[in-house]
Amino acid sequence: MSSQPLTSAPTALDLTLDGGALTAQLVDFPSVSGDEKALADAVENALRTLPHLTVDRYGNNVVARTQLGRAERVLLAGHLDTVPIADNLPSRVEGDLLWGCGTTDMKSGVAVQLRLAATLPDPNRDLTFVFYDCEEIEAARNGLGHLAAQHPDWLAADFAVLLEPSDAVVEGGCQGTLRAKVTLTGTRAHSARSWLGDNAIHQAAAVLGRLADYQPRRVEIDGLEYREGLNAVRIEGGVAGNVIPDECVVTVNFRYAPDRSEAEAAAHVREVFQGYQVEVTDSAPGALPGLAQPAAQAFLAATGGSARAKYGWTDVARFSTLGVPAVNYGPGDPNLAHKRDEHCSLSAIAECERRLREWLTAAR
Amino acid sequence: MSSQPLTSAPTALDLTLDGGALTAQLVDFPSVSGDEKALADAVENALRTLPHLTVDRYGNNVVARTQLGRAERVLLAGHLDTVPIADNLPSRVEGDLLWGCGTTDMKSGVAVQLRLAATLPDPNRDLTFVFYDCEEIEAARNGLGHLAAQHPDWLAADFAVLLEPSDAVVEGGCQGTLRAKVTLTGTRAHSARSWLGDNAIHQAAAVLGRLADYQPRRVEIDGLEYREGLNAVRIEGGVAGNVIPDECVVTVNFRYAPDRSEAEAAAHVREVFQGYQVEVTDSAPGALPGLAQPAAQAFLAATGGSARAKYGWTDVARFSTLGVPAVNYGPGDPNLAHKRDEHCSLSAIAECERRLREWLTAAR
Repeated sequence: MSSQPLTSAPTALDLTLDGGALTAQLVDFPSVSGDEKALADAVENALRTLPHLTVDRYGNNVVARTQLGRAERVLLAGHLDTVPIADNLPSRVEGDLLWGCGTTDMKSGVAVQLRLAATLPDPNRDLTFVFYDCEEIEAARNGLGHLAAQHPDWLAADFAVLLEPSDAVVEGGCQGTLRAKVTLTGTRAHSARSWLGDNAIHQAAAVLGRLADYQPRRVEIDGLEYREGLNAVRIEGGVAGNVIPDECVVTVNFRYAPDRSEAEAAAHVREVFQGYQVEVTDSAPGALPGLAQPAAQAFLAATGGSARAKYGWTDVARFSTLGVPAVNYGPGDPNLAHKRDEHCSLSAIAECERRLREWLTAAR
Repeated sequence: MSSQPLTSAPTALDLTLDGGALTAQLVDFPSVSGDEKALADAVENALRTLPHLTVDRYGNNVVARTQLGRAERVLLAGHLDTVPIADNLPSRVEGDLLWGCGTTDMKSGVAVQLRLAATLPDPNRDLTFVFYDCEEIEAARNGLGHLAAQHPDWLAADFAVLLEPSDAVVEGGCQGTLRAKVTLTGTRAHSARSWLGDNAIHQAAAVLGRLADYQPRRVEIDGLEYREGLNAVRIEGGVAGNVIPDECVVTVNFRYAPDRSEAEAAAHVREVFQGYQVEVTDSAPGALPGLAQPAAQAFLAATGGSARAKYGWTDVARFSTLGVPAVNYGPGDPNLAHKRDEHCSLSAIAECERRLREWLTAAR
């Protein structure tokens, strides 16, 4: 990480700027994970000037809500933190492109949130804007997780949009992930008298064979296709160069479609490795896309109608555990996230804002 | 390692003592690998008093020879070093048992060498006595290896006996050992999109399958049965818990009968893993038992006629590469070697000396 002094670092946000200019202002507020306080203060202060919103804060997490008594409530969420700066601040504009740390992941999305918060005093649905910290680091510090644990009522909604970069395509739900250790045990012996031992690494042949032969399921949910995968991600065995090893451990990662629960996923893995010692070491549930919900249908229509399944695990799963269907939808190419040459199209920011505004203002 | 002060540590050896008492004297001369100089000095000084022997020294290795012009020459070898002392010095006698570090491995064998050197001025075969250092540590420091490289003429003989503990059973030859790495390569991908990658650990299924199915050869040489073995001794693969791994390395150890050369052993391993990337990383040849030699036949008869194959790699292989058939034969239970409660039967020391003396003095 190399941060450079920002002589012109802003101290306040101007929500009257357009989305691109506001993104630049956000980018020039360094906010590497764990160091979001100044930006959270600025976001809170800016939102508190808006009379149509009630604002709450917990740690460096800020939640702003309309209270209009609408039939539906939509939640728009974004994280304030970035990965470490890599000599890519302050931001700079070249033609339609804005360059700098966080332009894609995800201060352009946060700018769209703030623009909508500032300019939609009378939306067709009640709105909740969530700005949270520590998304880029270990899950235990994730601000959205802290809000879900401490103030789940702040996150109540019928549908949520996480404005992570998705190249302006709706990414629905997310797959679950489970890790397990399959342990083979044998008997040690000197390798010069190998028949006195039982080689645990050789036993792993059958386990790896089941993995190699495994036919992953493809399943369609709400029109999105999810492709599962069951893979060895680590294998370890061996005592010394002259010893028949008595243990070999295969670590597998099961990425599963969100129509399976965590318990069902674990049962499936145990079934695949029936006859072997299986220990689940790590598990996170998937999230159903929820695209059959009326709010989601209207959202899909407003954003062009196309959606794809999300394979990687994302914070939409946190909403799912709260019973809130959620999708990823935001400006920016996700492949540029975390890169030194991170950049975002200014027109894409404007387009994302326009579509969301259309969805949230259309006659119902 | 815990060594204790020896107030009565000897400075000279008395070769008129019986084998058991001489073993005790040798045991009370601490000589952990790398620290053999005092004992090598004492051995050299004691041997130089014997007019029927010519004595040579290289480092802490001492070689004494008769020069009687006999038709055959027999070499008797033993190492002077021990593993680290483990609160088991000085030696002590309980009934027929002598306790202490090195009693079995192999100061009892060295005592038998010294007794024969001192008391056989007119043997039926010319004799070469070799005392060497650093047998218990890395091969590059082994004194017998240094002698073979620097003074191979000192080791010239028709037959060699290594007086390592063998429970008074002749152990013939030794198996060769070869290590090789079988490397599987694939393509990395995020485990949430595993179909974009090629899992190298899964590829190892076939390699481990060949190992599990491998039928090791059993072969009889000079009446001794050798059992080969081909085993995985290590497996490693994995990048991170969410990455399809692009490499997996299986390390195999092939223990092979001494009718195969190193090159033939390597070719066999390559054949077993045909189609895979195989790199031989380590290799040491085996040693034929040579029990068909006349000197060996007479030796076998003198020691009771029974012999078994040696599976572990030992220094007899060094003699084999010099063209000298060699066997292990010495007092003491090899299973007690390197143990805190190491001990040796005094009567077994006397019996070993008696049999070797009979062989080396019988009318021819």
